[in-house]
Amino acid sequence: MNVSMSVEDYMVDLGRRARAAAREVARASGAQRSGALTAIARALEADREIIQAANTLDLEAGEASGLDAPMLDRLRLDDAAIARMIEGVRQVNSLPDPVGAISDLDYRPSGIQVGRMRVPLGVIGIIYESRPNVTVDAAALCLKAGNATMLRGGSEAIESNKAIAASIRRGLRAAGFVEDAVQLVATTDRAAVGHLVRMSAYVDVIVPRGGKGLIERISAESRVPVIKHLDGNCHVYVDAAANAAMAVDIVVNAKCQRYGVCNALESLLVHVDRAAEVLPAIDARLAAEGVEVRGCELTREVIARAVAATEADWFEEYLGPILAVKVVPDIDAAIAHINHYGSAHTDAIVTDDYGRARKFLAEVDSSSVMVNASTRFADGFEYGLGAEIGISTDKLHARGPVGLEGLTTLKYVVLGDGQIRQ
Amino acid sequence: MNVSMSVEDYMVDLGRRARAAAREVARASGAQRSGALTAIARALEADREIIQAANTLDLEAGEASGLDAPMLDRLRLDDAAIARMIEGVRQVNSLPDPVGAISDLDYRPSGIQVGRMRVPLGVIGIIYESRPNVTVDAAALCLKAGNATMLRGGSEAIESNKAIAASIRRGLRAAGFVEDAVQLVATTDRAAVGHLVRMSAYVDVIVPRGGKGLIERISAESRVPVIKHLDGNCHVYVDAAANAAMAVDIVVNAKCQRYGVCNALESLLVHVDRAAEVLPAIDARLAAEGVEVRGCELTREVIARAVAATEADWFEEYLGPILAVKVVPDIDAAIAHINHYGSAHTDAIVTDDYGRARKFLAEVDSSSVMVNASTRFADGFEYGLGAEIGISTDKLHARGPVGLEGLTTLKYVVLGDGQIRQ
Repeated sequence: MNVSMSVEDYMVDLGRRARAAAREVARASGAQRSGALTAIARALEADREIIQAANTLDLEAGEASGLDAPMLDRLRLDDAAIARMIEGVRQVNSLPDPVGAISDLDYRPSGIQVGRMRVPLGVIGIIYESRPNVTVDAAALCLKAGNATMLRGGSEAIESNKAIAASIRRGLRAAGFVEDAVQLVATTDRAAVGHLVRMSAYVDVIVPRGGKGLIERISAESRVPVIKHLDGNCHVYVDAAANAAMAVDIVVNAKCQRYGVCNALESLLVHVDRAAEVLPAIDARLAAEGVEVRGCELTREVIARAVAATEADWFEEYLGPILAVKVVPDIDAAIAHINHYGSAHTDAIVTDDYGRARKFLAEVDSSSVMVNASTRFADGFEYGLGAEIGISTDKLHARGPVGLEGLTTLKYVVLGDGQIRQ
Repeated sequence: MNVSMSVEDYMVDLGRRARAAAREVARASGAQRSGALTAIARALEADREIIQAANTLDLEAGEASGLDAPMLDRLRLDDAAIARMIEGVRQVNSLPDPVGAISDLDYRPSGIQVGRMRVPLGVIGIIYESRPNVTVDAAALCLKAGNATMLRGGSEAIESNKAIAASIRRGLRAAGFVEDAVQLVATTDRAAVGHLVRMSAYVDVIVPRGGKGLIERISAESRVPVIKHLDGNCHVYVDAAANAAMAVDIVVNAKCQRYGVCNALESLLVHVDRAAEVLPAIDARLAAEGVEVRGCELTREVIARAVAATEADWFEEYLGPILAVKVVPDIDAAIAHINHYGSAHTDAIVTDDYGRARKFLAEVDSSSVMVNASTRFADGFEYGLGAEIGISTDKLHARGPVGLEGLTTLKYVVLGDGQIRQ
């Protein structure tokens, strides 16, 4: 950033360049975008040492300012992390090109032929916290979908992000591709975010990645549409007709495979007829994993070690080794509980009953609804999207894992032979 | 509205009822929603006289307060207008049920089967101006898509809207369907709109219908996603390879068939090699229709009566018998002009050249892009959507005419046999 510029002027300048670049990216052929991604992967390969030197500066500054060990871990770009970043670019590049595909080109009674073409959104602003690999992942995915990006990373990763962005741009230049297709907001001034989310003339969508606090703040402030991911208070409902062994496996996997992720299980619901049988079996496994149980009264009759759950527990996303457990009288109570207390992220039923499986799928109002599978599958890779920019808990535009399709939109195309309207 | 209630309490009460009703509507079968629509059509039929008596009160009040003749016309529910309203409900009811359809249910390497289910958005707030028929049209379309609605019409139509809403609710009651699926904001207090667009706990999307001023105000204020329709500064580009007779017909139809609509032509671009041939032929027809021409310098060399266009003319949506005309050196200049000055609504090329037709379709960044057809076709009925709630000039979620699909969203469904994540 030119020091003589105000933050606002700087951001408007970036925005104008992004808008101009977005037109060029959208106009580029799939082969050209693919060539640019290949060149980016090569540039990152060549610039490993520069990137790691910059990362060392961030790590030193982070240690000096007292960042905790997990934060430093997320910040660190060791050889394996860089290799994963580069591999990620190549994986994204191997996905089918979504841009320009025309679907449903049907004739209408007037004689015109109407279809829809998948096209880029334009300029995507990404706001993220400490992990510098997001700089590469987000830029690659957005570019594959034909968009320009404005990347605003966390201040603790600024040197790493600058080095990565410079490398990406070297790659773009080497491919003869418009460099401004990927721009880093290279200032740690917090006012930059305020400008970014208000520049609706230059930015088409904002994707914030980080904690709930960050995302709520950005959504409240933004004048640009936001694809947002709030909390994941995920449920498993063990139905009256559940296979008990399957229920135990799914609950333990959904809760314990990883604790700090949005698709981890937070609240377990169990049909009253199965509580005495299934809950002790689940509890034995949870206790072995060191998971605390907070239960309703009926739960506590079966699981002696469970502490009493409060109303707040049913709303809680623990992101840790705690599980809330409630015994419910029937599937309607389970669905009502999920739709009321849940966060509309991912919810699963375990059942062998056909009708109740269909009912659960239809009536649970969440971005992912599952039968006989672990909530941990709610993920762009597992769903076959190839990669994801995030998981949307919004209802409009993109819901659930957001891949290339969520980074594009559909416009109508009309082919005629001179038709006029009567 | 209960007079002892504050506007805020009143709106929160409506919102809570709408949220509860939305769950019931979403749970209803297609046959039940269809039965409700049939009953609404019957109730409106039975209540014709009550509705017209209420409408007379609005018309009298409107005359007394000095509404102009076009406003009174839009407000008037004569026999034909009521018949159209009822026919509209039946047409919407005859559309295929979009709710619950599952697509792309593919197996993944883990063994889970992942697809997407089309589901209602939930609660839709419609804010509109004088035409009381919107009360019926919007309620019917939203209900068909499985949503509950909160309808806020113009104050000048309040008595008509109350009578219509009461009739709709009589129909819902007769069908044994949840009445709160359709609620009218029965107060003319302007604060009600402010509450409606901020109740993100109860309202999932706002659809404003009216002038650009209303829509900009609502978008600025709203904390709920807005499907908005701003202006339609539509273009026709007559290419070097255009069929001259077709170009003349399309331009005249797009400009003159109706002036006050968003898909009418506002700016004509003509390739420099065809200006001397095509522009006089177009002008002869436009002059006969009484259309004023505002042209660039080269246009004025060919059309003597044209006045000089200013920079502001290229941005203008006239909605009247005026056309801006510019001669351009090539298709790139035409596309650049459209993407810069246009409103990304609807733009057409007239050409017999295959490559330039493809280029125009790919590079014009508008909600509808056409080859050899009049811009006037940009319309939900003409596109085969059956009906439309409006035309979106947004890029996210719905772009162009918004029908049943735009009033729904997709959630992921996952079918497993006990899969857990490794």
